[in-house]
Amino acid sequence: MLVDFRTHPDRYRHWRLTIEGVVARLGMDVDEGGGLGPWKLKMNSYDLGVDIELYDATQRLRFEHPDVRVVVIESLKERIFCAGANIAMLGRSTHSEKVNFCKFTNETRNGIEDASRNSGHSYVAALSGNAAGGGYELALATDHIILVDDGTATVALPEVPLLGVLPGTGGLTRLVDKRFVRRDLADVFSTVEEGVKGQRALEWRLVDELVPTSRFQEVVDERLAEIAQASERPVGGPGIELTPLEREQSDTVITYPDLRVELDRSAGTAIIVVLGPTLAPPRDPSEAVRIGASFWPLAMTRALDDAILHLRTNEREIGTWLLKTEGDPDIATAHDAFLIEHADHWAISEIVHYLKRTLRRLDETSRSTFALVEPGSCFIGCLAEIAFAADRCYMLDGTFADSDLPSPRIRLTHMNLGPLTMDNHLTRLATRFWGRDDARATAETLIGRDLDAIEALDAELVTFAYDDIDWEDELRIALEERASFSPDALTGMEANLRFPGPETYETKIFGRLTAWQNWIFTRPNASGPEGALQRYGTGIRPDFSRKRT
Amino acid sequence: MLVDFRTHPDRYRHWRLTIEGVVARLGMDVDEGGGLGPWKLKMNSYDLGVDIELYDATQRLRFEHPDVRVVVIESLKERIFCAGANIAMLGRSTHSEKVNFCKFTNETRNGIEDASRNSGHSYVAALSGNAAGGGYELALATDHIILVDDGTATVALPEVPLLGVLPGTGGLTRLVDKRFVRRDLADVFSTVEEGVKGQRALEWRLVDELVPTSRFQEVVDERLAEIAQASERPVGGPGIELTPLEREQSDTVITYPDLRVELDRSAGTAIIVVLGPTLAPPRDPSEAVRIGASFWPLAMTRALDDAILHLRTNEREIGTWLLKTEGDPDIATAHDAFLIEHADHWAISEIVHYLKRTLRRLDETSRSTFALVEPGSCFIGCLAEIAFAADRCYMLDGTFADSDLPSPRIRLTHMNLGPLTMDNHLTRLATRFWGRDDARATAETLIGRDLDAIEALDAELVTFAYDDIDWEDELRIALEERASFSPDALTGMEANLRFPGPETYETKIFGRLTAWQNWIFTRPNASGPEGALQRYGTGIRPDFSRKRT
Repeated sequence: MLVDFRTHPDRYRHWRLTIEGVVARLGMDVDEGGGLGPWKLKMNSYDLGVDIELYDATQRLRFEHPDVRVVVIESLKERIFCAGANIAMLGRSTHSEKVNFCKFTNETRNGIEDASRNSGHSYVAALSGNAAGGGYELALATDHIILVDDGTATVALPEVPLLGVLPGTGGLTRLVDKRFVRRDLADVFSTVEEGVKGQRALEWRLVDELVPTSRFQEVVDERLAEIAQASERPVGGPGIELTPLEREQSDTVITYPDLRVELDRSAGTAIIVVLGPTLAPPRDPSEAVRIGASFWPLAMTRALDDAILHLRTNEREIGTWLLKTEGDPDIATAHDAFLIEHADHWAISEIVHYLKRTLRRLDETSRSTFALVEPGSCFIGCLAEIAFAADRCYMLDGTFADSDLPSPRIRLTHMNLGPLTMDNHLTRLATRFWGRDDARATAETLIGRDLDAIEALDAELVTFAYDDIDWEDELRIALEERASFSPDALTGMEANLRFPGPETYETKIFGRLTAWQNWIFTRPNASGPEGALQRYGTGIRPDFSRKRT
Repeated sequence: MLVDFRTHPDRYRHWRLTIEGVVARLGMDVDEGGGLGPWKLKMNSYDLGVDIELYDATQRLRFEHPDVRVVVIESLKERIFCAGANIAMLGRSTHSEKVNFCKFTNETRNGIEDASRNSGHSYVAALSGNAAGGGYELALATDHIILVDDGTATVALPEVPLLGVLPGTGGLTRLVDKRFVRRDLADVFSTVEEGVKGQRALEWRLVDELVPTSRFQEVVDERLAEIAQASERPVGGPGIELTPLEREQSDTVITYPDLRVELDRSAGTAIIVVLGPTLAPPRDPSEAVRIGASFWPLAMTRALDDAILHLRTNEREIGTWLLKTEGDPDIATAHDAFLIEHADHWAISEIVHYLKRTLRRLDETSRSTFALVEPGSCFIGCLAEIAFAADRCYMLDGTFADSDLPSPRIRLTHMNLGPLTMDNHLTRLATRFWGRDDARATAETLIGRDLDAIEALDAELVTFAYDDIDWEDELRIALEERASFSPDALTGMEANLRFPGPETYETKIFGRLTAWQNWIFTRPNASGPEGALQRYGTGIRPDFSRKRT
């Protein structure tokens, strides 16, 4: 089944998004019959389709609603906030479907935290009933968790005791690394199937506030008003409507206005060509807002985001992505200068953070990525980040015999020095030169200069430079070789090499928690015919191998 | 097959340890027929048995040879340094055997780095021939890698291209996080089956020095002399002989002079009772050296180390370890004071670092650990670390009705505030109070005070305090519950909760690299009948699923 990540509030089946001045309400009301597969989404449990809407809502809030300062996630169902990921869905999903589902939900929750950190968009979780598993993990991604004190409502991570898997959507990591829950209490909490309620939940730092039923709505609203007042989100002015993303698709080509994908199924490769801007940047940020969704940096980012999600989810046998760019270097440089100059404007800031998140998605993608710097390319600043995100970068030294295009150049801009950090909170250049500050400083002095292949190689900005004579053969060999390796080994290798240096809880979630969860998902104790995911709901206890590994 | 981790240089089959003044030579000469299973250990490839000897040698060097300042790891075979982990062994091993083997080899390599960092014991890898896979990873754990420049000798990590698994003994992590190899070059290097030699190996930072064959031995010796001169290892005086570790064993009880293990196979639990010191500490460090291997902190640590390794490897269905202590609090406190007072003495320093490494082994063990603080216990300083290493700590509030022993106390000493750091380089108290500096500071003011259960609970040093009436029931329920959970889910949960806060390359190796490797080990592409590990050496190419996960 082809999953489409494009949606719109008018078409939501599971969420209700309402704006009340500075407050946005994200009401969860999952449609039981609206799952992507043959499972009932009971008790506000979710599958990928539910999360695609949540992602869409969090994006639209940032662009379409500049006035919003606080977002409350609440349940529109009685006595339940959210029961987490749907177990029947997990039981019926293939290993890679589970893994992909978790990755996307993790990215969405990291995005919520990014909004808090960078958009003056605080999130509040109003738990008017039980929040279990992924339901509580969603709350953990917010800034403030309010739990109703009605004698029954609990927060819970029942994955280990009930399902034989982990709370893998950041749960374990956020307990100890974000909320500073003591590790032994986290151990107890994560093994108590029925969860923790009331005063104990507060004492263990699992929630921030406990409110009796009678005052619940009132206190939530008070809190929203207070938080909104503290926000530094600037007021007023129109938003940017995220108009429907144009995409045309055949079996082998996907075309967006600012991006093109060419699939070669027999080789297992996709060529992703990001197109640079063709018009000069607008006069000022207000004009950029007027241009809206077709303002190049935003349009390009939306296309890249959608292409990554589409290829990841729907094109599993395409193991290597070839990243290319096309465009006018000077117009691209002018756009970078515009983004830097107006970095403080809310809309420009949102666009840059969105590009940052999208590039992070690329970093976290389990595909080999090779950047190809060829004549006609436009690896400038923002677009050069695509090359630095790649596992390798090949640059043509000179020109192609059969083309009039001049030899390619790479050009750094100030966009390479700060705004577009990775999940390790370092820039891609800092990551590239990790442990070698001198080499990094030298590379950074090259800002604004056009670097040909030999200069880029000297500056350590590309992996290989080949001339026209060797180019095709070297690439063919590299791609055939890559395609011959175990896709699993490549995934593990890339996940380890892409993130040298410090860790953050984002990298811990993707690198540590996710890796353990993936392992557990493959184990018979979870996914075998007698494992916990299969036995769930049958009334028969799972039959575990008792051996520790 | 029962694996015994106790050995002695006189019995080594695979290594030759020779001491030449300040230089120790660790010569690798693996006995092809000396494997732990029916595999030929060709070309200095290794299995767990080979690594047990390496571990023993690195330990003896620190204790028995105080004069040694530099250790060279070299091959006694022609044209090969080490071919890495034996593939036939990996192919025939169960999943958990592979995982356990990797964990132990990782601990040994981390121990080598610990010797460099803390014992003035630099390690040099003298690569007189090919170093592949685990062979090169062993070199990566040293301080200085010298490669012969003979036109053929390479360093290589051929796991991904050849075996469909990762260089999982720290290789990927040490490339980018220790040696600062650029991530794209690390990608290339880790996919080139034949490896990299000569100048390119040097340029890519894969080795530190390149020496022609004719001068190889001479330059190695020069380098050893230089490094020895720079060492701060104090000279002279006798070492401490690591005399044979006494252990008596029945089917359910293991007894060391300073530790006792009681197994309950039906419950899946082991009670590990660490015995406190019975004699006052020695007058001074020289007397401690004279007492040698029976000096309590050393004897206790050796027993704990051996018990952990034995239970981990040979008792796989014992999923929960109950950690207890017995002894005289004041004598234990006096020992802690002695260790602190003489921390600068080489032998005392070695003992403390050994205890540190052993407690780290406990942190990295995939078993649930509950500490039980009962009357007669001795959770003082060093021994209290065992409680802080545990997933949970239960403390009796008061006394047992059927016993004359007074109610238990916990007592912090300065040993809890610095020397015994975890792999994240934080103390266990700093980890426990991660993100909550005030709570940590408050706890640290309690040094030297006897804390009963209620006080310990208030200070957040224990998880639960129960009185005599509830004790047995609460524990029984907790243990039965723990035993009912999926062992895999518990392993993943514990690996995530035990290490809040910063990451180091040790934690990256155990948490990120190892978790991905474990996942890959379970995948058909590696371990299935048509996977790379099974097909290796048959001449038939593995048949990979091309799907990316």
